[in-house]
Amino acid sequence: MDKLDLNFRHEVGGEKLVIAIAQDHVSSEVLMVAYMNEEALKKTLETGIAHYYSTSRKKLWLKGESSGHTQEVKEVLTDCDEDAVLLKVEQNGGACHEGYYSCFFRKIETDSGELKLVKQKIFEPEQIYGEK
Amino acid sequence: MDKLDLNFRHEVGGEKLVIAIAQDHVSSEVLMVAYMNEEALKKTLETGIAHYYSTSRKKLWLKGESSGHTQEVKEVLTDCDEDAVLLKVEQNGGACHEGYYSCFFRKIETDSGELKLVKQKIFEPEQIYGEK
Repeated sequence: MDKLDLNFRHEVGGEKLVIAIAQDHVSSEVLMVAYMNEEALKKTLETGIAHYYSTSRKKLWLKGESSGHTQEVKEVLTDCDEDAVLLKVEQNGGACHEGYYSCFFRKIETDSGELKLVKQKIFEPEQIYGEK
Repeated sequence: MDKLDLNFRHEVGGEKLVIAIAQDHVSSEVLMVAYMNEEALKKTLETGIAHYYSTSRKKLWLKGESSGHTQEVKEVLTDCDEDAVLLKVEQNGGACHEGYYSCFFRKIETDSGELKLVKQKIFEPEQIYGEK
């Protein structure tokens, strides 16, 4: 594959990144948002399994590596200014390490700004990741 | 409203931000991704109209201010680590300044990395924004 001509303009810790949104390819539910560097995007396109760049661990991150909750990538889109990608995926298990299918499981109340749980857990994190 | 207890951890030009994804509240199509500072998020919650933080112009950005293509916000969700928000919106006109309903109008070809147009324009930018 030639060099990917995207705009890796988001910088975290000196790493050049694009924003990466994952969306269920059937229901269109948004599952998570993270970053990718060029290596992560190439790996994703080459393998068909979502790879991100972990800004906390500062390295390539195969989503689901420890949990088995991988994302099979059906399509990758980019936006007008080419600094973000949208992955249409088949999510194995749940996307969220807290036990939810989507990381977006809380609503912000308009009047108070408080957070309110609006989704149900689909697995218990301790059973997947072990006790903390 | 009390101080919003989110993690404005993304820094661009010294401004502390969360990632903000806008999604059609009926079809669930992802429309765009941008950033919000605390002021933009408060304005969005208070007015029910999406406001972002423009990292290029370095100021509050009322989406659709010049085009009329505003976003009426139906719901705001946040993710597990509270550094991103997902807006469920009713999009007036199109979200993309290039004339598309969604900014994600091109697919990345898996084998070549080339970009391929996969959506149709819904308006001509010159007619909305004037000639460049």
